[in-house]
Amino acid sequence: MRISELSRRASVPVPTIKYYLREKLLHTGVATGATQAEYDGTHVQRLRLIRALADPGGLSLTAIRRVLAAIDDETTDTHTLLGIAQYALGPGADGTTATDPEWEEVRGDVDAFLAELGWKVTQFAPARNQLTHALLALRRLGMPCSRDHLHAYARAARSVARAEIEQLRESPTRTEAVQNAVVATVLYEPVLLALRRLAQEHESAQRYRARR
Amino acid sequence: MRISELSRRASVPVPTIKYYLREKLLHTGVATGATQAEYDGTHVQRLRLIRALADPGGLSLTAIRRVLAAIDDETTDTHTLLGIAQYALGPGADGTTATDPEWEEVRGDVDAFLAELGWKVTQFAPARNQLTHALLALRRLGMPCSRDHLHAYARAARSVARAEIEQLRESPTRTEAVQNAVVATVLYEPVLLALRRLAQEHESAQRYRARR
Repeated sequence: MRISELSRRASVPVPTIKYYLREKLLHTGVATGATQAEYDGTHVQRLRLIRALADPGGLSLTAIRRVLAAIDDETTDTHTLLGIAQYALGPGADGTTATDPEWEEVRGDVDAFLAELGWKVTQFAPARNQLTHALLALRRLGMPCSRDHLHAYARAARSVARAEIEQLRESPTRTEAVQNAVVATVLYEPVLLALRRLAQEHESAQRYRARR
Repeated sequence: MRISELSRRASVPVPTIKYYLREKLLHTGVATGATQAEYDGTHVQRLRLIRALADPGGLSLTAIRRVLAAIDDETTDTHTLLGIAQYALGPGADGTTATDPEWEEVRGDVDAFLAELGWKVTQFAPARNQLTHALLALRRLGMPCSRDHLHAYARAARSVARAEIEQLRESPTRTEAVQNAVVATVLYEPVLLALRRLAQEHESAQRYRARR
């Protein structure tokens, strides 16, 4: 297909496609003339993946490039790819202040909590810092997160993670498995967040609306 | 206390405090001279709230202003405040294309799913569009989210939302209740996301590492 047809099928404007081609996020088509090329289904699929990672996934172009490179590297296994997708999602370690004793204390609590859960997670997983950051903010507001509350979140998190990873096993090919791993990490995040907010509204309506 | 002491106790630099004062996000202290004022614990608390909403909460200054105005308005009840916090968190309706038949179809599925769950949620809740957006992206990638999978997320979301809203009931004063409502919506989001990623890593390690 020509670029105009590719644009229509992937719902991506032609100038954006040309930008992705220049940035090497999208593989080139088969040249059929000095200024023309022929594209196929792999281009449609790749464009949809890029768009989904950007929005609703929320990844920057830099992060998308890193994720795509990992997908294209045949030696990357699924577990490693999942890690790369998580790093790409951020946040980085920027927010951390290694010399802050309060940070160190909360980070110690996080490590102890994960050990208590028996979760096998590398020490440098960015989500350890992400969790530390959020718990520290709650503590500084004088609203520390209780152990019970944290366990409730851990149970919910583990039940969705198990379903997500389980689904990956069903992928027949490597290409599908790696794409599914990225999708599981990036695109199910807004699904979970949106449902949590809807559930909050429902629970809140049930408890508070009568009191209005 | 003086501004330097306020800065130290809230871990916010003096120029940032002055900026918040100019922007009226922080209430002024009691003037003790032409260029000096006395601050108290309410200033420390407000500064910590602003900082937590900005990071890890991820809210823009505009969104923070809206949330603080709702907190300060004594006539705002908890249920309404929760809604304002959700709107402030975004995303807005920008991503929606009301004329796109595929969008309309997925939005119809979302509405039907929420009706099936029996959740009482207003039609204009931004999270309906947020969920539609994510599910549409998955569908366009040829990886539609199954009903079973969506139910698994809904169960997890509801269990944490119930614990969050339950906690709000325990707040003794309105000020605490409204601040807790905001915190429940904004600050427990990164807690849940971080734990989901950690659980993914654990589940993935268990299933894939052996195959490496």
